[in-house]
Amino acid sequence: MSQKVRIALDAMGGDFGASVVVPGAAISLTRHPDSEFLLFGDSALINKQLDLHPALQKVSRVFHTDIAVSMHDKPSQALRRGRKVSSMWLAIEAVKKGEADVAVSAGNTGALMAMARFCLRTLPGIDRPAIAAIWPTIRGDSVVLDLGATIGGDAEHLKALAVMGSAMASVLFDLERPTVGLLNIGVEEIKGGEEIRAAAELLREMNSPQFEFIGFVEGDGIGKGAADVIVSEGFSGNIALKAAEGTARQISEYLKAAMSRTWRSKIGYLFAREAFRSLRDKMDPNKSNGGVFLGLNGVVVKSHGGTSADGFAYAVDVGYDMVRYDLLNKINQTLNRGGGALGGTPTAREAVS
Amino acid sequence: MSQKVRIALDAMGGDFGASVVVPGAAISLTRHPDSEFLLFGDSALINKQLDLHPALQKVSRVFHTDIAVSMHDKPSQALRRGRKVSSMWLAIEAVKKGEADVAVSAGNTGALMAMARFCLRTLPGIDRPAIAAIWPTIRGDSVVLDLGATIGGDAEHLKALAVMGSAMASVLFDLERPTVGLLNIGVEEIKGGEEIRAAAELLREMNSPQFEFIGFVEGDGIGKGAADVIVSEGFSGNIALKAAEGTARQISEYLKAAMSRTWRSKIGYLFAREAFRSLRDKMDPNKSNGGVFLGLNGVVVKSHGGTSADGFAYAVDVGYDMVRYDLLNKINQTLNRGGGALGGTPTAREAVS
Repeated sequence: MSQKVRIALDAMGGDFGASVVVPGAAISLTRHPDSEFLLFGDSALINKQLDLHPALQKVSRVFHTDIAVSMHDKPSQALRRGRKVSSMWLAIEAVKKGEADVAVSAGNTGALMAMARFCLRTLPGIDRPAIAAIWPTIRGDSVVLDLGATIGGDAEHLKALAVMGSAMASVLFDLERPTVGLLNIGVEEIKGGEEIRAAAELLREMNSPQFEFIGFVEGDGIGKGAADVIVSEGFSGNIALKAAEGTARQISEYLKAAMSRTWRSKIGYLFAREAFRSLRDKMDPNKSNGGVFLGLNGVVVKSHGGTSADGFAYAVDVGYDMVRYDLLNKINQTLNRGGGALGGTPTAREAVS
Repeated sequence: MSQKVRIALDAMGGDFGASVVVPGAAISLTRHPDSEFLLFGDSALINKQLDLHPALQKVSRVFHTDIAVSMHDKPSQALRRGRKVSSMWLAIEAVKKGEADVAVSAGNTGALMAMARFCLRTLPGIDRPAIAAIWPTIRGDSVVLDLGATIGGDAEHLKALAVMGSAMASVLFDLERPTVGLLNIGVEEIKGGEEIRAAAELLREMNSPQFEFIGFVEGDGIGKGAADVIVSEGFSGNIALKAAEGTARQISEYLKAAMSRTWRSKIGYLFAREAFRSLRDKMDPNKSNGGVFLGLNGVVVKSHGGTSADGFAYAVDVGYDMVRYDLLNKINQTLNRGGGALGGTPTAREAVS
């Protein structure tokens, strides 16, 4: 890693392309002045935006390409049309070539994962990549993974997720030995499926100095902050994330409706405006923007496609932290301590292929 | 079914036993005066409560037993200790013997499911039971199942869930042809696992007059009311429910904290008190209390263990509706229309055994 953190941006990604990506990078730069940027995409559009952000312009290089992956392209289409030529591919490839330390894109998740896998390949000892995100909880933030990169998976896969997720948590939250919980259900006698119980045994045996395994966590334990890292195969992890997001949106709609119903409630709203602002702040999806692709030879961060410049800036921040605090080395160290056990039989079905 | 709806109650179930069950039944009786009750448990405790509710007392019979299943008993323990003698078992058995139309218990879910399965057996054409619940959405209520009775399951199992869930939705919400969606994730190219895609094909082919299959629904679609019935295997369904509950609790804690932070926000709260009350009402977990066990030769309703009398009353209401509007016959009719196809190879792993 060079002194500066070199961030490759897919300037065409997301619903708004350069008009969100460039201002977002400018915001992140004010927080991390030791960043520099490689911007891939339509140079006319990018330069128009850069002209408005001279500080960013000074630390940016622009690489032109006409080709952008659309939000609706299927992964296979994106690979066919966009490999080696699209802004998304070129940003990832900059990481592979060692010209950048991390790539950030607000482009479509399936395409981004397919390209990242294809271009960067998985780490030795890791069969399947994962998507991890930051989940705001009552006790602070947690890392939750996998959010949908891989459906299903055996105990070794879940163990690899624990290793990668705890490395990310220690980097992001500056924790020596983050706690790790396995997402499970609590209805039945012998909890969960065989692979979850087997993973619990593996993690207990492992007794890793890198993380503390605390056992099973139910769906409502995530928001309580029951563990710093919550591990799940990708299907259930995605369902948990989306169900929580849906509930948050639902409640904020109820709240808005309730506050505008009568003159009394409107006055109440005016008095409590600051309180509502702090609530909105806590629930702000921008702040937890940035899904991190783990398990690859390089770091790729996925921003929400519909995010604002503020939201994109948070995704860039996440990418910055991953590089500055050396995520990949931490993962590799833990993998090596864990011996050759990681990897196992490749039974996880890949969602992106 | 007799003229009256005959409801068997496990008066010892839940964290508070008779002191919640009896007042809860009294509340439900005011809404459905054509109910009568069979109460199983410690007759001294039950009668003490009944003395306070003379209207309920008139339509109740008490059956004494000393034995109660504890909230911490494992299903196998509960069966060993409580079969044929516990208040939980006797309430279920009353349904089997035709002495009651429905059983309601706030006792522990695993034990209740084990006993219900053992005593009532599954419906012909149904391999595995399911737990369904009412999920409040922006567009009104939906039915979501399975919430954890069975982990995993093939396409036929998911189809059976669609049949049972849509019967429940048409009974509860008075819908001619409720919409049904399959819970899935949207990250990857070919969505979800094989069994979900196969189930989608089955449901499309079926083109049932009892329900309209609308395709896949993601986790955040549940709260939007994307379908009247959301179908999932039990692991993901449970994770979705718990993640949503956890988020609702988290936000209400944020809100409470925000509203009591400054004098301005406290004044605002006073003005908007009615609005907050209506919000609390909308988010009230009591109102969606009552998990319905589907797929058995008889209806069993599970109330939350920690619920209040109001919450227990809602669970009794759900049981009443199921009987009054003839849930089991609706399920059987749809199963028979579907031909002998339902049932399939029993590949679902049972969570309760």
